Amino acid sequence: MRFSIVTLFPHLIESYFSDSILHRAIEQGLIGVDFVNPRDFSPHRFAKTDDYQVGGGAGLVLEPLALSNALDFVKKKNPKTHIIFLTPCAKLFSQNDAKCLSKKSHITLVCGRYEGFDERLIELYADEVFSIGDFILTGGEIAALCLCDSISRQVEGVLGNSDSLQGESYEEFLLESPNFTKPHNFKNLLIPSEYSKGNHARIHSLKLKASEAKTRFHRLDLYIRYKQRLKDEK
Amino acid sequence: MRFSIVTLFPHLIESYFSDSILHRAIEQGLIGVDFVNPRDFSPHRFAKTDDYQVGGGAGLVLEPLALSNALDFVKKKNPKTHIIFLTPCAKLFSQNDAKCLSKKSHITLVCGRYEGFDERLIELYADEVFSIGDFILTGGEIAALCLCDSISRQVEGVLGNSDSLQGESYEEFLLESPNFTKPHNFKNLLIPSEYSKGNHARIHSLKLKASEAKTRFHRLDLYIRYKQRLKDEK
Repeated sequence: MRFSIVTLFPHLIESYFSDSILHRAIEQGLIGVDFVNPRDFSPHRFAKTDDYQVGGGAGLVLEPLALSNALDFVKKKNPKTHIIFLTPCAKLFSQNDAKCLSKKSHITLVCGRYEGFDERLIELYADEVFSIGDFILTGGEIAALCLCDSISRQVEGVLGNSDSLQGESYEEFLLESPNFTKPHNFKNLLIPSEYSKGNHARIHSLKLKASEAKTRFHRLDLYIRYKQRLKDEK
Repeated sequence: MRFSIVTLFPHLIESYFSDSILHRAIEQGLIGVDFVNPRDFSPHRFAKTDDYQVGGGAGLVLEPLALSNALDFVKKKNPKTHIIFLTPCAKLFSQNDAKCLSKKSHITLVCGRYEGFDERLIELYADEVFSIGDFILTGGEIAALCLCDSISRQVEGVLGNSDSLQGESYEEFLLESPNFTKPHNFKNLLIPSEYSKGNHARIHSLKLKASEAKTRFHRLDLYIRYKQRLKDEK
């Protein structure tokens, strides 16, 4: 699985792959990441990549020529690439998307900047368009990292212990239950005593109850879908 | 406004502040960012910072001693800090949170890793707990960048043109309308002709219609809230 990240500011995010799980995955050849800078493809003087909005409005827009040249370059090198634009004006990226996309052989992540893309770029090039959440960033670079990271950890072998992929948050519309580790007494807070007694059925049932309570408190929207799922399974 | 980012892997994200808008904001003294590594505060041999889960389960948990020492250090230096833990088991971060948090003087962003935090750390230290979306990352570092970036751009002076903060996505439960810039003819796709005619009332009404259509298509949940808002205003 390879990623090409198309961004005007590759050096802001390149080092994200310099250590930890993703670095190991790159060294093992499980994933690959390269960066393409539209500035290198600009036909304009001074390698300009933005321009004023037609119709008025504050802020500059990524102009289409540099970016389309960059995307043509990526597509020529990777004819099967799946092109994803990152912008707040799109559907929300979810864990299910991460799983599906981990089956692709090549993904191109296109980062917005300024007031975003000329819409015609999206029409001509995008296979999918994602937002990572209901908040605005100075650019799409962090959003691209989110997709790259969450998709990569679904690729076989990237997480040392594939059991870690089991029972994760969102799997069944439930947030994970609280975790505890030593010491047993931490600033006068104790680990629930049942956790140490080795009765795994009992621990499982306690964890499920904690998960349900946490989901209901923080994420009523997920909790409703969870209850619906239980009902459907009956 | 200052941020302290508490992470085991500062070098993965430090360079995010080396260019563009946030770099300028740091140079102008509008924001400040420092990094604190719990590993430097571990009381254990080999500076260990993780341990097995009590009660069983795959994966390691961040053990509480190193992290609590690190947080005590940050609190001593910044007694008014607002401590935010990043974990998928929490409420969703939104643009409204970014706005509210931009009024704080100091924010500490605590990044999870592995299977997450010992729950007692959250109970003892967290002022707030946020998730950035319904997907799982290898660590909380990208989530911390999301908060840091979206909060920073709400700080006065960080965006050169404060008009850019007007009419953004999510402001009124609407996604932004499509943007266009030159050339007028891009690969045989033309900019809507009304955009060039200078009738701003007409352009505004066209943009609003496009926003509504986009929101309805991509984000029915937001669209329902938008319609409700219009009804409430009547």
